[in-house]
Amino acid sequence: MTLARRLAEFAAALRFEDIPPAVVASVRLRALDILGIALAATTAETAPSVLGALEGWGASGDCTVIGAKRTAPAPLAILANGTLAHSLDFDDTHATSITHASAVVVPVALALGEAGALDGRALITAAVAGYEAIARLGMAAPGAFHARGWHATAVCGPFAAALVAGRLERLDADRLTAALGIAGSFASGVLEHLEDGSWVKRVHPGWAGHAGAIASALARGGFTGPATILDGRFGFYRTFLGAEPDVRPFATLGHEWETLAIGFKPYPCCHYNHAYLDCALDLRHEHALAPEAIAAVECRVPAGQVPIVCEPRAAKLRPRTAYDAQFSLPYSVASALLDGRIDLHTYAPARLTDARRLALAERVTHVIDPDSPFPRGFPGWVRVRLSDGRLLEARAPDGRGSVSRPLPAAAIVDKFRDNAGRALAPARIGEIERAVLALDTLADVRSLAALCRA
Amino acid sequence: MTLARRLAEFAAALRFEDIPPAVVASVRLRALDILGIALAATTAETAPSVLGALEGWGASGDCTVIGAKRTAPAPLAILANGTLAHSLDFDDTHATSITHASAVVVPVALALGEAGALDGRALITAAVAGYEAIARLGMAAPGAFHARGWHATAVCGPFAAALVAGRLERLDADRLTAALGIAGSFASGVLEHLEDGSWVKRVHPGWAGHAGAIASALARGGFTGPATILDGRFGFYRTFLGAEPDVRPFATLGHEWETLAIGFKPYPCCHYNHAYLDCALDLRHEHALAPEAIAAVECRVPAGQVPIVCEPRAAKLRPRTAYDAQFSLPYSVASALLDGRIDLHTYAPARLTDARRLALAERVTHVIDPDSPFPRGFPGWVRVRLSDGRLLEARAPDGRGSVSRPLPAAAIVDKFRDNAGRALAPARIGEIERAVLALDTLADVRSLAALCRA
Repeated sequence: MTLARRLAEFAAALRFEDIPPAVVASVRLRALDILGIALAATTAETAPSVLGALEGWGASGDCTVIGAKRTAPAPLAILANGTLAHSLDFDDTHATSITHASAVVVPVALALGEAGALDGRALITAAVAGYEAIARLGMAAPGAFHARGWHATAVCGPFAAALVAGRLERLDADRLTAALGIAGSFASGVLEHLEDGSWVKRVHPGWAGHAGAIASALARGGFTGPATILDGRFGFYRTFLGAEPDVRPFATLGHEWETLAIGFKPYPCCHYNHAYLDCALDLRHEHALAPEAIAAVECRVPAGQVPIVCEPRAAKLRPRTAYDAQFSLPYSVASALLDGRIDLHTYAPARLTDARRLALAERVTHVIDPDSPFPRGFPGWVRVRLSDGRLLEARAPDGRGSVSRPLPAAAIVDKFRDNAGRALAPARIGEIERAVLALDTLADVRSLAALCRA
Repeated sequence: MTLARRLAEFAAALRFEDIPPAVVASVRLRALDILGIALAATTAETAPSVLGALEGWGASGDCTVIGAKRTAPAPLAILANGTLAHSLDFDDTHATSITHASAVVVPVALALGEAGALDGRALITAAVAGYEAIARLGMAAPGAFHARGWHATAVCGPFAAALVAGRLERLDADRLTAALGIAGSFASGVLEHLEDGSWVKRVHPGWAGHAGAIASALARGGFTGPATILDGRFGFYRTFLGAEPDVRPFATLGHEWETLAIGFKPYPCCHYNHAYLDCALDLRHEHALAPEAIAAVECRVPAGQVPIVCEPRAAKLRPRTAYDAQFSLPYSVASALLDGRIDLHTYAPARLTDARRLALAERVTHVIDPDSPFPRGFPGWVRVRLSDGRLLEARAPDGRGSVSRPLPAAAIVDKFRDNAGRALAPARIGEIERAVLALDTLADVRSLAALCRA
C-alpha cells in the first residue's frame, strides 16, 4: 500500500467517535486560536492586498472571508483566510514536522464545513485527518525541507488540505488518493523571503489550503492523480528532496495523535525564537535586568535554525520589515530583554528603527549547539554576561505552549480575546468563543462562519 | 539586477510596436491552436471533472470558460481553460526549455484581456512577455527539471503567467517583480503521473496560469515577494534543482524572440515522440509497409527522453490509459506503422487493447543515442528490420512543426477547424478563426472570448 493510500484510508475511515476527547479539545482551541489571529490580521498590513485581490475578481460564493463583508467561492475564501491566519506569525507549529498545521487545516475545514452546511463534528473529524497527515508528511523528512530551502508547511500542506476538503466533500479512499496525487503537483513554497523580509511566506498556508481544496474538487469529479505521489520515482520526497521518506511515522496513524504535539504560540514570531524568548524574559524578570547592564548575550542554537533566524547576520541586526524582525533571533531576544514582553507591538514599524533596541541586538550572538534535539523540540539556551562581570544562564527544553510545557486553555482563550478584539466588538467575540468551545455540539458550521464576517 | 527584475523590466517596457511582425503572426496562430485544442477537449474525458469543480464552487465571474455556458472569476477560468488546453497533449512546446508555453500563456492572456476589456494588441504584447519568459526560465537549466522529476512547464509556468497577468493588470516593474517573487512559492508540478498514466499533468498549465494570475492580483495590491526569487539562496533554481541558473538566455531578452522557436504539434502526444512518428510514417508511406512484414523497430533516443517515453518498458508496452499511450514511444510508433496516421483516434480507449497494435509495439525497442542534440531539438531516428531481411532507416533533426521544419499556417488553421469542429458549429468556428487571425486589430477581447462559450 502506498503512503498516499494509507493516508487516504485513514482519513476516509476516521470517525468522530474514534478521536480521543483530548484531541477534540485540542482542535477546539486551535480553531479558536486561528480565528482570533485571522481577525487580528484583518487590521494588519497584509489584509488590504488579499481582500483587494478578491474584490478584483468580483467573485462571490458560499464561504465567509474572515473579517470581511464579502463572501467567496471555497478555494478563494480559503486562500484569504489561510493567509490571514499566518500573517502575524502567531499561529501554531507542529515541532517535529516544522509545520504550521492549523493555518492550513482550519480555514479549509471552516470553508468546506460552511459550503456543505455540515456540523461541528464533521469539521473536527476532517481537521484531525489533516493534522495527523501534515505532521507525518513533515516527520518523514525531519528538518530536510527547511535545509533545502522549502517551507515545510507550504509543501506538506496541500496534501493535508486535500484530505480535510475531501473528507468534508465525502470522497471515498480511492478519490482521496487521487486528490493526494493531484495535490503533489500543487505543493510549493520556498524560503527566499528570508533574504529581504518580503511577505510571501504569509500566503503559504492559504495557498496550501487553496491547493488542497482544488485537488479535492477535481478528484470528486473523477480527475485522477498518481497513488505513488509520496513514494514514487518522481514523487514528492525524491523530487523535492532527492531522498526517500522515512515511513515509520505513518505506522502510528490512528494510534498516536500528533494533533496533541502541536505547540501554541504565545509570541507572534518564528517558533524557533520562542524558547530563547522564554529564557530571556525569565532572566529579565528574575534579575530585574536593565538593558544597559547587559554586555553580551549568547544564544546556543541548533545548526538547522541558523539560516532561518541568525543569518545573514547583517540583515538580522537591521530588520527591514516586521517579517525580518519576526525571523531575527537577535532582534527578538533584545526586545524581550528591553521591553519585558513580546507581543504584536514588538514588531511594529516604529520599533524596527529604535536605536536602543538595535544596539542591544548587536550584543546578541549565537553559537552552534551540536547536541540540540532540534527538530524533536525547539529548545532555548541563553547566556547573559553583565557589565559587572556576572554570568547568567537560562535553558528551556522547548517554548511555552509546546507539548512539554503546555499553556492552560485559559491562556489560549485570552489570546483569542485579545486578537479578536482588534477587529470585533466584545459581544460578537463572546458568541464566537462560545460556539468554538462547543464545536463538537455545533449543528451547522454556517452559524459560526457567519459570526466571523464583518 | 536580479533575474526576476530583469524579466519584470522587460515585461513592463515591452511595446506592441517593438514586437517583430513574424512574432505577432506566430502568437495569432498559437492562440488559434490553443482555442481549438481546448474546444476539442471539452468533449473529452477530463472536461466533466474540471467543469464539475467550477459548478461545485458556484462561482460566477467575468471570464469565459471555454466551451461552457458558465463564467468564472479570472483565476478559476484560467484553471479550467489551461487544463483543457493541455488535456489532449496536442499543444505546442518550446524545445530548448521543454515547456508547453501556449497552454500556460494563452488562457491567462484571454481571461485578463476579457476581464479588463482590453484590445488584441494588449493581449499579444502580454503573451509575448510570457512566452519570452517561460522559454528562458527553462533554458536556464536545460533538461534539468525533467531529469529531477519536475515538469518544466508547471514549475516555470507561474512566473510567465504572473508576467502575462501583471502586464494586463498594468503592474509596474516593481510590482511585476513582487509578482514573480510570489509566483516562486506557487511553482509546482511533478512527473509522477508517468508511473500510472493518471491525468494530473493535464492540469499543470492551468494550475501554472492560475497561480500566476493570483500572484499578480496579490502584487497589484502591494503584497510583496522576494526580488531574488530566481537567483537567491533559497530561490527557484537552488531549491528546485540544487543548481545555479545559466543566466545567458536572459541576456537576449528583446533581441532574440524565443516565441518563434516554439514547435506546433501535428500529433496529440508527447513531443518527444514526434520526430520518430514522422520517420515511421515516412517509412510506411515510402515503402508501403504492412505491419506483419515488420520484424523489429529500433529507435535511437537521447538518454533524457528514456524515463519519459521508453521506461518502465512494461508500462509503455501495455498503456493503461490514453495518457500512458501518449507517453509511450513503442505504442505511438507502432500506431504510426499500423494506421499510417496519428490523430486523436490513436489514443482512444478501444485502441489501447488492440492486440495487433500491442504486438507490434513489443517489436519497437530503443537504444541510447549518446550524440543526440536533445534538448536543443527533439530528433527522431528509426531503424526498421523487415521479415525479408531488408533494413530501412529514417532520421529527422526535429519533428514537423518545429522551428527547423515549420508547418504552414494553413496546417495550423486546418488543425484548429478539425479540433473546434468537435465542439462548435461551422459558423462559429469561422467567426473565431477570423477574430484570432486578426487579433492585432481586435478592439475588445470580450468579443472573442464570448465566441468560445457554449
